[in-house]
Amino acid sequence: MIIVMKPGSQDSDIHEITDILESLGLGVHISKGTERTIIGVIGDKRVLSDVPLELMPGVEKLVPIVEPYKLAGKTFKPEPSVIDVNGVKIGGKELVMMAGPCAIESRDQIMSAALAVKKSGAQFLRGGAFKPRTSPYAFQGLEEEGLKLLKEAKEATGLQIVSEVTSEKAVEIAINYVDMFQIGARNVQNFQLLREVGRSGKPVLFKRGPSTTIEEWLNAAEYIMSEGNYNVVLCERGIRTFETATRNTLDISAVPVVKSTSHLPIIVDPSHAAGKAQYIHSLSKAAIAAGADGLIIEVHPNPRCALSDAAQQLTPGSFDELCKDISRMAEILGREFKYGA
Amino acid sequence: MIIVMKPGSQDSDIHEITDILESLGLGVHISKGTERTIIGVIGDKRVLSDVPLELMPGVEKLVPIVEPYKLAGKTFKPEPSVIDVNGVKIGGKELVMMAGPCAIESRDQIMSAALAVKKSGAQFLRGGAFKPRTSPYAFQGLEEEGLKLLKEAKEATGLQIVSEVTSEKAVEIAINYVDMFQIGARNVQNFQLLREVGRSGKPVLFKRGPSTTIEEWLNAAEYIMSEGNYNVVLCERGIRTFETATRNTLDISAVPVVKSTSHLPIIVDPSHAAGKAQYIHSLSKAAIAAGADGLIIEVHPNPRCALSDAAQQLTPGSFDELCKDISRMAEILGREFKYGA
Amino acid sequence: MIIVMKPGSQDSDIHEITDILESLGLGVHISKGTERTIIGVIGDKRVLSDVPLELMPGVEKLVPIVEPYKLAGKTFKPEPSVIDVNGVKIGGKELVMMAGPCAIESRDQIMSAALAVKKSGAQFLRGGAFKPRTSPYAFQGLEEEGLKLLKEAKEATGLQIVSEVTSEKAVEIAINYVDMFQIGARNVQNFQLLREVGRSGKPVLFKRGPSTTIEEWLNAAEYIMSEGNYNVVLCERGIRTFETATRNTLDISAVPVVKSTSHLPIIVDPSHAAGKAQYIHSLSKAAIAAGADGLIIEVHPNPRCALSDAAQQLTPGSFDELCKDISRMAEILGREFKYGA
Amino acid sequence: MIIVMKPGSQDSDIHEITDILESLGLGVHISKGTERTIIGVIGDKRVLSDVPLELMPGVEKLVPIVEPYKLAGKTFKPEPSVIDVNGVKIGGKELVMMAGPCAIESRDQIMSAALAVKKSGAQFLRGGAFKPRTSPYAFQGLEEEGLKLLKEAKEATGLQIVSEVTSEKAVEIAINYVDMFQIGARNVQNFQLLREVGRSGKPVLFKRGPSTTIEEWLNAAEYIMSEGNYNVVLCERGIRTFETATRNTLDISAVPVVKSTSHLPIIVDPSHAAGKAQYIHSLSKAAIAAGADGLIIEVHPNPRCALSDAAQQLTPGSFDELCKDISRMAEILGREFKYGA
Repeated sequence: MIIVMKPGSQDSDIHEITDILESLGLGVHISKGTERTIIGVIGDKRVLSDVPLELMPGVEKLVPIVEPYKLAGKTFKPEPSVIDVNGVKIGGKELVMMAGPCAIESRDQIMSAALAVKKSGAQFLRGGAFKPRTSPYAFQGLEEEGLKLLKEAKEATGLQIVSEVTSEKAVEIAINYVDMFQIGARNVQNFQLLREVGRSGKPVLFKRGPSTTIEEWLNAAEYIMSEGNYNVVLCERGIRTFETATRNTLDISAVPVVKSTSHLPIIVDPSHAAGKAQYIHSLSKAAIAAGADGLIIEVHPNPRCALSDAAQQLTPGSFDELCKDISRMAEILGREFKYGA
Repeated sequence: MIIVMKPGSQDSDIHEITDILESLGLGVHISKGTERTIIGVIGDKRVLSDVPLELMPGVEKLVPIVEPYKLAGKTFKPEPSVIDVNGVKIGGKELVMMAGPCAIESRDQIMSAALAVKKSGAQFLRGGAFKPRTSPYAFQGLEEEGLKLLKEAKEATGLQIVSEVTSEKAVEIAINYVDMFQIGARNVQNFQLLREVGRSGKPVLFKRGPSTTIEEWLNAAEYIMSEGNYNVVLCERGIRTFETATRNTLDISAVPVVKSTSHLPIIVDPSHAAGKAQYIHSLSKAAIAAGADGLIIEVHPNPRCALSDAAQQLTPGSFDELCKDISRMAEILGREFKYGA
Repeated sequence: MIIVMKPGSQDSDIHEITDILESLGLGVHISKGTERTIIGVIGDKRVLSDVPLELMPGVEKLVPIVEPYKLAGKTFKPEPSVIDVNGVKIGGKELVMMAGPCAIESRDQIMSAALAVKKSGAQFLRGGAFKPRTSPYAFQGLEEEGLKLLKEAKEATGLQIVSEVTSEKAVEIAINYVDMFQIGARNVQNFQLLREVGRSGKPVLFKRGPSTTIEEWLNAAEYIMSEGNYNVVLCERGIRTFETATRNTLDISAVPVVKSTSHLPIIVDPSHAAGKAQYIHSLSKAAIAAGADGLIIEVHPNPRCALSDAAQQLTPGSFDELCKDISRMAEILGREFKYGA
Repeated sequence: MIIVMKPGSQDSDIHEITDILESLGLGVHISKGTERTIIGVIGDKRVLSDVPLELMPGVEKLVPIVEPYKLAGKTFKPEPSVIDVNGVKIGGKELVMMAGPCAIESRDQIMSAALAVKKSGAQFLRGGAFKPRTSPYAFQGLEEEGLKLLKEAKEATGLQIVSEVTSEKAVEIAINYVDMFQIGARNVQNFQLLREVGRSGKPVLFKRGPSTTIEEWLNAAEYIMSEGNYNVVLCERGIRTFETATRNTLDISAVPVVKSTSHLPIIVDPSHAAGKAQYIHSLSKAAIAAGADGLIIEVHPNPRCALSDAAQQLTPGSFDELCKDISRMAEILGREFKYGA
């Protein structure tokens, strides 16, 4: 970290600061410029997280040099992490495909979706049991009943199960049914919940929030990882911008940025980014070409009957086409995806 | 709601839609334009919340005409609401001032803050017991211990207590100590939590999320109100934009926009919007001039020793100056604020 | 267009409006809902562009149904346009590659860049002669001298020339040297300039502005096209958002959105979106996979000596790698790109 | 400026950089941290504007310490500037009010507007002669004819004239008629035009662009000032965000931020920020309370007949009310405004 002093700051101001830094065991390096003096701070800055240096007399601003997260960063672990979910590996050579309906609605619906996505090559079944909906008057999910249906579908197909948890109570229930927790965009900074899934040790699919920078997202991942759970897979799902042609703006650059700053795998959710089924093929191919480790896609046996987010769910037929395309692209890109396993 | 049909849609497409609408008890009005046919839907659209009309054959898009929220809107209740918190009225002629430290740190700190803000005219003491912090390595709050100190401060000063709750468990604990729950920006769409504070019946200070539109914010307020709790006070605290000179961009226009679409009171939090103490006076005066019903401001007896958000906390002296200014402005604006009660 | 009336609007208000509409030759369709009356307007709404209907008594808001642009839209021309620049076709099966340095700096530099990009398969040479720079103290371009060097490079290599024009005067000069004008992001709503390049009849590469919605961008294209010049190629180059890890946020969704609403070709500029050379490969492949008709990429024979935007320019070697990758991807996607022509 | 080296950078990398810096006459200060080495650069960094240091081997990133603009900054001139336009002072104790129609439409209209705004206390008449409109099918302004009408109105009322210029040609024409050039938001980085008005020496009202940071805006002002024209008045008019309840989001914080970093005066344009007349009073009062030096407001003798931006123009009566309110607020804030001069 660099401390930039105001023009005209006093030597006594500088001494007051260096005294504090040295008392905390930090090294200090002073550099006098033409207009301003700057103080370089050397050592582990976490001891400073509760020291309001910016209020010391003569201080103009603080400039961080090293990223604030630790466990999620490449400095901590330079080689890419591969997360193993009961044998399915995320972040390795093979691309991972998670698919299924937005919400679990009935045994028929989820079983039919599971069989379809399995047939096209998906390794994970997704499906929401706890649904955070914008309006309190809309369908809110089947909760535990839904999770039981997911488990049935798993037994029938061998697919791994990923499902969103929205509260500590939901974690307690879902832990008995799912293979991977999903933390949704709205909970990206629900730190209580992050700690909870951290303590569970179970793999976590961790979505970016609609107004979260990549740095804040990696910082939030730190809440899960600092509980000892390193099984975190990031998921880019679009950020909020002024553009309204799509529900969110897919930040495709997050893929190479995360790859260059973190060792965690990253997959992409084009369904929530686009909000419209007609753009999913294009964005899915873009995500894989950009280097994503997989996709999570909403597929519904009959989108026209879906109880939530109908407009963005693919039909099984359209999903199958997509898997075929992804499989052909994978090869060119040095990856692998088994279409029609 | 208006359903816009694609150019070239068939009469059979239109009939299929009108059949569904009529079967749900809705009225229908068809208008054939030069390029497109549109279908007007008449009646309570909430019966449509789970019907994916946008996927019916021939449909291009849906255009909402009436705002989706009900209880928070002016159509439901045209005259402004006044929320009564143990005799302190929010949304009436008198401006309300909530002040106190970002986080409760010690008995001395909170008592000293309480006495100071009371002396300048504040009616509420704020102070965080459950602190959602960006980094897991920073101070996370005193929790119940902190709430007890708030209650002591209330007994000594007569100030009302407002404090943030971040989980259902926090609600259960805090209900015994606070006069008003605060829902923070990060939880604006934590619907489980909104329902919980809704069920409690206690007044709620409801902050806008950093990427929440005003319409979505009022929709989220609906989660609290649909549980029968109408004691909701909105709080604008800045939105996320590309500008980095301030921590967030205070959306001052939210004040007149809320006043024209909702009956709920709205106050402004300049501390989190600006992120820097030096801009608080300017933004506070702007908020009151724009028509806000009050302010919530971070005041710390010694900001240089604060354990969180030090840079944005005012000293008691600076807060006192501000209260004096606000009191003089209030008169000009047809409001009231008793400086130095 | 739909006119939504306020709750409680009078019949006389409605009549006043319908009288105006009918006097302008427009059809009218009235639909009375439970809460509001709406008036559908039938016919060419351009006659209304200067009539302030939103100020008529009783009017709550106007809701557009049909997109405001005409010539750029699919309704006007459903099949994709192919723009021909001296035999090089943009928007057809073949992908187009435009490459070259940010700014023209010297004969050696531009000639060396031209030979290199030609060798890898590029069909266009880019290079800035008029440089809009954020700071007035930075290099501003060689102007006409630079254009002459571009023309020399064209004669030596057969590459087509695309170069930015920033003023009417620049258009007058550049028309003698370039094969395609580029309108930069900062001039997306410089309507005077758009008209000027419209009148020239020459093909135009039209970049999106950093805060322009796709609809506004197509509206701006209308300024060029309404002068009779339909040779417009759109170029997505990133929008401004809160994320700072990249210079801009590449809006990859703009590719499928434009393809579904407009007949104009669209290419992608990953260099300005990313601002960092290390992300260009990833974003370029994503753009082609998303369905873009080509790329425009900054390539400098020696980026470390570049006089502007050094950080985002590829070396010829890195560009060659990219062309090889694109060529292999093209086939999978049903496109074509001749690597190493 | 600070140069941050990558972990593991070599001593030879550092020497290569310090050699370059020293050869340019800059001082160098090296500080070795636990994870990274940083190099402090001492002296006038403008000599580095065309040196791509970020591409040198071993360099991770550059961190600017001093703001890039010079003439617009407080370091250059600590005390506030007062701009004199024929005796009317902007930036002093007196608040300045600029008012008039969006576009000049006819002699009657502009004369009637001029008399009305003069009567309420305005010192400036605004009115657009060159209108940049989103759609090419909308009214584009009266051009020179309009400027003549403005001058007539000036002669009749004594008001100063401010009007937008959109091209070099417009500058040449308008210089004969107006007292102050306005540079509109769309041209904030039209550097050619900025230089042109810089060379003219005439006072410039310089609007912020919808996606321009405050720092970029001050950098752009530098283009005007570096031509020797220091008569620049900044104008905040809203930035583009995800919120659609208002046309733009008024960045009220820009007022205190500019006051703390620049010596230039700043006024606020609530009309373009809000886009709706009903919010203008609220935002105008907020702007003055925040510390703005004045306002520019659209006023039309008959908004319902306006040919552009009808929805955001005040009636003379509503404007008069506003001036009365501003006059009363001015006193409380230690400013002055003569209502009904």
